[in-house]
Amino acid sequence: MSESPRVGIVMGSTSDLDTMRAAATMLQELGVAFELKVVSAHRTPDLMFRYASEAAGRGLAVIIAGAGGAAHLPGMIATKTNLPVIGVPVQSKALNGLDSLLSIAQMPAGVPVAAMAIGGAANAALFAARILALQDAALAQRLAERVAKITAEVEAIEL
Amino acid sequence: MSESPRVGIVMGSTSDLDTMRAAATMLQELGVAFELKVVSAHRTPDLMFRYASEAAGRGLAVIIAGAGGAAHLPGMIATKTNLPVIGVPVQSKALNGLDSLLSIAQMPAGVPVAAMAIGGAANAALFAARILALQDAALAQRLAERVAKITAEVEAIEL
Amino acid sequence: MSESPRVGIVMGSTSDLDTMRAAATMLQELGVAFELKVVSAHRTPDLMFRYASEAAGRGLAVIIAGAGGAAHLPGMIATKTNLPVIGVPVQSKALNGLDSLLSIAQMPAGVPVAAMAIGGAANAALFAARILALQDAALAQRLAERVAKITAEVEAIEL
Amino acid sequence: MSESPRVGIVMGSTSDLDTMRAAATMLQELGVAFELKVVSAHRTPDLMFRYASEAAGRGLAVIIAGAGGAAHLPGMIATKTNLPVIGVPVQSKALNGLDSLLSIAQMPAGVPVAAMAIGGAANAALFAARILALQDAALAQRLAERVAKITAEVEAIEL
Amino acid sequence: MSESPRVGIVMGSTSDLDTMRAAATMLQELGVAFELKVVSAHRTPDLMFRYASEAAGRGLAVIIAGAGGAAHLPGMIATKTNLPVIGVPVQSKALNGLDSLLSIAQMPAGVPVAAMAIGGAANAALFAARILALQDAALAQRLAERVAKITAEVEAIEL
Amino acid sequence: MSESPRVGIVMGSTSDLDTMRAAATMLQELGVAFELKVVSAHRTPDLMFRYASEAAGRGLAVIIAGAGGAAHLPGMIATKTNLPVIGVPVQSKALNGLDSLLSIAQMPAGVPVAAMAIGGAANAALFAARILALQDAALAQRLAERVAKITAEVEAIEL
Amino acid sequence: MSESPRVGIVMGSTSDLDTMRAAATMLQELGVAFELKVVSAHRTPDLMFRYASEAAGRGLAVIIAGAGGAAHLPGMIATKTNLPVIGVPVQSKALNGLDSLLSIAQMPAGVPVAAMAIGGAANAALFAARILALQDAALAQRLAERVAKITAEVEAIEL
Amino acid sequence: MSESPRVGIVMGSTSDLDTMRAAATMLQELGVAFELKVVSAHRTPDLMFRYASEAAGRGLAVIIAGAGGAAHLPGMIATKTNLPVIGVPVQSKALNGLDSLLSIAQMPAGVPVAAMAIGGAANAALFAARILALQDAALAQRLAERVAKITAEVEAIEL
Repeated sequence: MSESPRVGIVMGSTSDLDTMRAAATMLQELGVAFELKVVSAHRTPDLMFRYASEAAGRGLAVIIAGAGGAAHLPGMIATKTNLPVIGVPVQSKALNGLDSLLSIAQMPAGVPVAAMAIGGAANAALFAARILALQDAALAQRLAERVAKITAEVEAIEL
Repeated sequence: MSESPRVGIVMGSTSDLDTMRAAATMLQELGVAFELKVVSAHRTPDLMFRYASEAAGRGLAVIIAGAGGAAHLPGMIATKTNLPVIGVPVQSKALNGLDSLLSIAQMPAGVPVAAMAIGGAANAALFAARILALQDAALAQRLAERVAKITAEVEAIEL
Repeated sequence: MSESPRVGIVMGSTSDLDTMRAAATMLQELGVAFELKVVSAHRTPDLMFRYASEAAGRGLAVIIAGAGGAAHLPGMIATKTNLPVIGVPVQSKALNGLDSLLSIAQMPAGVPVAAMAIGGAANAALFAARILALQDAALAQRLAERVAKITAEVEAIEL
Repeated sequence: MSESPRVGIVMGSTSDLDTMRAAATMLQELGVAFELKVVSAHRTPDLMFRYASEAAGRGLAVIIAGAGGAAHLPGMIATKTNLPVIGVPVQSKALNGLDSLLSIAQMPAGVPVAAMAIGGAANAALFAARILALQDAALAQRLAERVAKITAEVEAIEL
Repeated sequence: MSESPRVGIVMGSTSDLDTMRAAATMLQELGVAFELKVVSAHRTPDLMFRYASEAAGRGLAVIIAGAGGAAHLPGMIATKTNLPVIGVPVQSKALNGLDSLLSIAQMPAGVPVAAMAIGGAANAALFAARILALQDAALAQRLAERVAKITAEVEAIEL
Repeated sequence: MSESPRVGIVMGSTSDLDTMRAAATMLQELGVAFELKVVSAHRTPDLMFRYASEAAGRGLAVIIAGAGGAAHLPGMIATKTNLPVIGVPVQSKALNGLDSLLSIAQMPAGVPVAAMAIGGAANAALFAARILALQDAALAQRLAERVAKITAEVEAIEL
Repeated sequence: MSESPRVGIVMGSTSDLDTMRAAATMLQELGVAFELKVVSAHRTPDLMFRYASEAAGRGLAVIIAGAGGAAHLPGMIATKTNLPVIGVPVQSKALNGLDSLLSIAQMPAGVPVAAMAIGGAANAALFAARILALQDAALAQRLAERVAKITAEVEAIEL
Repeated sequence: MSESPRVGIVMGSTSDLDTMRAAATMLQELGVAFELKVVSAHRTPDLMFRYASEAAGRGLAVIIAGAGGAAHLPGMIATKTNLPVIGVPVQSKALNGLDSLLSIAQMPAGVPVAAMAIGGAANAALFAARILALQDAALAQRLAERVAKITAEVEAIEL
């Protein structure tokens, strides 16, 4: 993407890409510039802190972080930036993502993370777009058109 | 508040006020203008739809919605506005808020809601402030100072 | 169906049809006129409110609503009609329908929804038939015969 | 009550009365004749079967059954009558009613029970009233007035 | 089996046979006479009561009852007999047997049911055998030999 | 008790006595000789093995074992005796006994334990009595009378 | 303590001290030198990284970290040190520590954390002592004596 | 392995080998001598006690025990040795290892077990290595190199 990214999509492992790709696809569809990176809380803690610390200065406005199991990535990124951080609980093998959801949602007072549904990467992108649309009337228009189009499609379904 | 509110805090019942007051207190501390209302998905559905539909036009930028049990308020508001909606799962009597959390977090693709922790109203306010701070350097500064102050306080603790 | 429908079966998405078809099949077997529609709480909120508001006037007596995850459809329909509303929790991908069940069953006092088992669309139809049979002796007779037939079948099983 | 009861409220033990009284109060408020009895699936199985078998003949139209823990009462009553049976999961001591909810909601195909929320006795009464209102225009009117009154009360709340 | 059965194995549906067959196999291996029947709490309630009431008189000493979901069979059988009743939670489709386990284990004081593990039909047979072995020294001997044999087999494993 | 005990009630800690006393009381009421001891799987493993190994030889017919949290006592006793072992999950502080229940009920094939409800010590005694009554007609009679008395009491309740 | 600490006990907040004090008490009883500090993953991330990075150099051999809710402290410390890290899930308000336990235990492959029971601070200290005792025969002796003393105490209990 | 083993890996059944092999592989990769055995708490209780009692004398420093369902092996081994014991919850068929995790993690005060993630055998090996590295500078060096290598690999990923 030639445009400078406004949304950073990060995930703890390439195995999360199956889930997180939906965020990238949705942002592309909405015309929002983004970047996609593997940044692991547990395997690259310094990179993670650097990434979070530098995000605002590099022009990012929102960070989407996906992680599974004891999912520490969204919460730890949110400690090192004041940008809004959206957490996507990746469905885990044994507990189906209940562990991921609780590890992301149950943050203590002081460091907010916006938890999406388990596997909810598309909604993370839509939520990021809602935030960016506060300053971008054209994006707001595209979001509204998208909603109207889907509403019309659903209303037209005949079973 | 004399300033036009940027954040709407809504809840399904006055019994949620014990939980949701923390959002109001935090926004006040951060100097963010807000309004506080009872809007029930189940008891005032038309008011809820009107509230959500008119929110952007009235100058609101973010909506914080608190609800417990089969917590439909955040998700239903998010269907009638394209503003970012933050959901606060209120701790329920029998299931301690697990029902509230799942009813808010597990939204289907298409309509995003940002779930906070069970009882996480203060974080909802902080998350709203992070969003608003993208366009408000003074607020960003206040947020940064708040974080620095807390960090210093914790670092100074001697057990 | 030529007869005016007494039961409205609605669901949030065509993907719920695999689950909800069992309700239609059962009603057909019992000779109860019904209609089957996609009405989404999150994607077609206005249609949903219109559907619920007009249901009684159009001659519907019972509404069966199926939804999964943060399943808001049954509860929201029940706010806009005073007809009995039966909710069918559709089995969700990550949490196997526990989220759907809690989002449907844990309604606050004031707006009742009758929750069936996860995936329990056939029972939703049987429950609707029990309601209709209060005013329809022939249907009551068919229900009683159905029960007697099944009892006899089970009693005849030899392992 | 002098009028012949239309709704039977049964519960497994007098200790369930704290929960189930809300059903009686609501029916009284709505002017629906009812009876209130202790009928235990486990301690009085024959009485339970007799109660369920004779209910329709005695003029009952709906049965509300409350039980906790391994809550078998609603499901077993529903096997011996074709009247609509509404189950109220009573909050249990150890598991807070999750066991009660699952024991009531997860009925197999063939025998439907309408599960309410944990402790949801008031909604059980409202659901029974919705069923009876299909044949009772005055009750339907009272239900509609009740909803309108509550809506107005909530809309009038100033925080 | 020519010998009069000492253990009755019952299950709510033929679909439970995949699980419950292990009980029959184990009893056969231990030389305990048994019978195997479909007796459904919900579809054949009268047969169930008759079965339970007559069990002791027919010479049964133990009843093993398997059921899934809102599993009422073991508990209801235990209300109509004073024989020891062993419940086997059959793994359910949506909730993997957690509902079955709670519906069987969480019996109220007064009517005991011995819950096995989810899918634990073999152990139900072994538990029945332990009961019968109190009066049958030969069976006690066979049980002891079985344990000794398995212990030896495990001790001989080389990885 | 002067009579030689037929039932051994053991528990991991004196703090379990509040729960387990109900087993003793019930056995006393039924006239079954028992003994009551603290035997801890984790703090007195050798005593536990000795207790289990010697139980049958000392004339015990049934062992009731109560434990909470990672409740290993019932399962471990069942490995060292072929007597029937009944496990009582003691309600734990954090998880309310769900951990206790799963640790007791989910035994692997080969070593059966009969799980009671969380806190279900009275039922453990009743279950033990049902086992002993197979060889003790007087006890069977007392059990039957107890059931009949309770049934009559419940049937006499007027609300 | 005059001796250089071998165990670092850290916790995210002074409110965790009620839980974590048991670790300090136990280490003191065992004569193991320790330090006790508030180090928050979310409020003092840099201090946390510094603490973990410098721990081995400062002579610490084991770190015990207590945290509740979305408990990231043990896992994040374990990324910045190769010392053994023991995590203590602090009982949380809404979910009773289930969230804490899963956030600590469900670590991805590569960064191990030793999870104790919810509230299990005393066991964290005992586990740290078992590790240190591998190189400290006197401590091993004290541990063995402690176990023997407790075993004797339990064996002496008369109910 | 010619070297005398420092780590004992035990599991309750050969069916656990699929999970536990990862511990062996990791220890091999790290150059830590180990042994691998089937030792069942329930089927070979005496072997288990002997194994645990003799472990320290035979030169073992750490025991890794894997078990599923009502997983008693790690806790029972920890009662008969003062070596550090690491428990690996094996994913169970019905409850996906939640039962295994709770049976291992929720140990009472006095007998510590270090619970890993469900299926976390590789981390058990890494945790054992962290313990051994306290006395083995070369192993500490290999652990540090392993972490550095993985960090570099993750940092080099380009999506």
